[in-house]
Amino acid sequence: MIHLPIFTDPSESELNSRKSKLLISMDERGLDCLVITDPDNVYWLTNFANYIHERPFILLLSISGQLTFIIPELERQHAKTRSIGNIELASYYEFPCEKEQAWLGVFQKRMSPYKNVGIELNAPQFISKAIQATSEASELIEVARYVKSDYELGRIVYSCNVATKALERLLKMAKPGLSLLEVHSKITKLMQMQLLSDNPQINPLATDVAAVVQPPNVSHDPHNFTNVMDMDMCLGGPHVSIINGKMNGYGSEVERTFFLGKVPSKADKPYKVMMDARALCMELCVPGTDMHDVDSRVVNFLTKHGYGDNILHRVGHSIGVTGHEGPFLAKGFHHQIQAGMLFTIEPGIYIKGVGGFRHSDTLLITENGNEILTPIKDSLQDMTIPVNAFKFKTSPAFKKKMLQTYNRFLGLNL
Amino acid sequence: MIHLPIFTDPSESELNSRKSKLLISMDERGLDCLVITDPDNVYWLTNFANYIHERPFILLLSISGQLTFIIPELERQHAKTRSIGNIELASYYEFPCEKEQAWLGVFQKRMSPYKNVGIELNAPQFISKAIQATSEASELIEVARYVKSDYELGRIVYSCNVATKALERLLKMAKPGLSLLEVHSKITKLMQMQLLSDNPQINPLATDVAAVVQPPNVSHDPHNFTNVMDMDMCLGGPHVSIINGKMNGYGSEVERTFFLGKVPSKADKPYKVMMDARALCMELCVPGTDMHDVDSRVVNFLTKHGYGDNILHRVGHSIGVTGHEGPFLAKGFHHQIQAGMLFTIEPGIYIKGVGGFRHSDTLLITENGNEILTPIKDSLQDMTIPVNAFKFKTSPAFKKKMLQTYNRFLGLNL
Repeated sequence: MIHLPIFTDPSESELNSRKSKLLISMDERGLDCLVITDPDNVYWLTNFANYIHERPFILLLSISGQLTFIIPELERQHAKTRSIGNIELASYYEFPCEKEQAWLGVFQKRMSPYKNVGIELNAPQFISKAIQATSEASELIEVARYVKSDYELGRIVYSCNVATKALERLLKMAKPGLSLLEVHSKITKLMQMQLLSDNPQINPLATDVAAVVQPPNVSHDPHNFTNVMDMDMCLGGPHVSIINGKMNGYGSEVERTFFLGKVPSKADKPYKVMMDARALCMELCVPGTDMHDVDSRVVNFLTKHGYGDNILHRVGHSIGVTGHEGPFLAKGFHHQIQAGMLFTIEPGIYIKGVGGFRHSDTLLITENGNEILTPIKDSLQDMTIPVNAFKFKTSPAFKKKMLQTYNRFLGLNL
Repeated sequence: MIHLPIFTDPSESELNSRKSKLLISMDERGLDCLVITDPDNVYWLTNFANYIHERPFILLLSISGQLTFIIPELERQHAKTRSIGNIELASYYEFPCEKEQAWLGVFQKRMSPYKNVGIELNAPQFISKAIQATSEASELIEVARYVKSDYELGRIVYSCNVATKALERLLKMAKPGLSLLEVHSKITKLMQMQLLSDNPQINPLATDVAAVVQPPNVSHDPHNFTNVMDMDMCLGGPHVSIINGKMNGYGSEVERTFFLGKVPSKADKPYKVMMDARALCMELCVPGTDMHDVDSRVVNFLTKHGYGDNILHRVGHSIGVTGHEGPFLAKGFHHQIQAGMLFTIEPGIYIKGVGGFRHSDTLLITENGNEILTPIKDSLQDMTIPVNAFKFKTSPAFKKKMLQTYNRFLGLNL
């Protein structure tokens, strides 16, 4: 099925329907107010993205449906410009400031009518402790965000389209000697320019994209970006390439493991097992499956093939107004997969001395199965990129030149 | 006095002396353990910067001086590589995961010996509520970070040097028609390249710099970066230019209000009053002054000159392992200024229809007074940049060309 990308801001009725989901679950729990501090939750409900600083931003949702947004006066105009729908803005003077003008007074005054208040699990304790009425930790919004609306899906489809094209471009550039820095700089810039071109009203505070690649000497350690100056592509592999982020407010992720010129013999088996784990994962990702079971069965499969000690993470997370969020395809996480959910599918095998083996795609759960929103080839043959001797570039010399050029920025060695 | 920039990682003894500050205040409060979750506090104590995701990272400081770092297994190698000093790594399998392998068990087991536990005010409540022993909210680390060591100062001096040169370069580029996008892209890139050149072992997770400019139609609204495609420099002003961020782990800030070609007559008085408020602020920023008094006296001064309704924020914040932190020069914030503290000095006047008037500098408090670490000219004469007709560029055409070029990235209109 073709899902058309959506570029426009959410309508008031889209935001109202998100609010309605919450009102139903608040009612079920007997809550008369929900206190929301997570910037992603605020964005999901209001279309307003924070520039994050120490000043508290607190959104209150009353069981009557009224939204009240407590903000520093400094942000009033900004909140007015970006927020959508009927939201009461209640500002405080500054943070910190004198007691009678401070956020706490504004917050406690607004909270005084409520008796049974829910507040996010990840809310800072200085806010949760300021509520005098009975309060209850609550993950209601997290859960309300699990199943996507058609509108959300359209925004995410656009984000996936950009990510997919960016990864294709990255794979086309790939050659021995190409540095992480150059990949990051070029591909990230391309994505940013595309986003600006398609979305003249883009919200930069809701945009955060990255394109990176790990060469085989570090790809076994998937969160290692510590030696960025020495991360250059080389003959062979596995290299792991990653596009992840949120684009004008909506996330996507796509990753490919690839080789340059040749596939080391030690890489054949883990690549094949990773591909089989991936296929198993996709087969299981249909409405009705327990998310725990997906991870659990993949772990068993990898263990059976000798890679039980080479697993470093669960097989997937969701995507929404962020590029990384719940629900999770993870052992111990017992929730049922439903149509309209999104997951990254990314079982990984990590072997020191050999490298990392992981593709990732953004997958939409449909009524009858699922659908990949980031369709890029993934076979070992397709992911073995021919190396043209002419394309070689001695990276150290290039980097030296690049840095010497910019050294002239300060005109001196600091 | 000349402060030499420092590039190297902190020594173990530097980190131990930070820890010692905390142990003294823990002892005074009778705490036997401090629970630390804020990534900036973790970085300050360990040199390890998080890639932020939902998996909990929790650092425990025992009154015995032992540091224990609870992390997902996925990050063990990364934490080992970047952390400095004797830190016990205690990992959990994944988040979420099955109960017996989860973070909560590891955390509660490590917490079981402690009776009187302090936990940061901004810690997420799902962590603070997991502690069964008596716990006490605590801002000990925030306070311990107020006065900088010589080492910290050296790192911040380097950050200020880069920021200063970047702003000088920005002012040199300034011309009517130049877009925010181009300024941001070029100056941010120059800073990043300089950082890479000076710090081959740079930590990208502790680096986040930005160069931006607000033209006069939005400069009255200091957090407004909502219409980035339409923010172009123009004849006149006031334009407000901003360099802020952290560079390889240490922050800086410098900002200038400037004009192109001419100064509108309505801008003369607010510029002069802002400059006088700035001078007053610097005069007051010496050891012994109550931080409240600095803001309070500046507010009175601005009010006396007719700008009481044109104030949107306190006059300054501090700088450290972030570009924006406490202590604050703010009414109601009663702390004494001490030598070795750093403050931004940035009284602002905001007038709709005229614009924003704000310089900012990073100021070091010395034994006998203070010193600007971001020395750039600031007079109205110096901040009125001559416009050369030859330098004009029609920004819409440029932007169109730029975007058309990148449109070819996807090769289609999405």
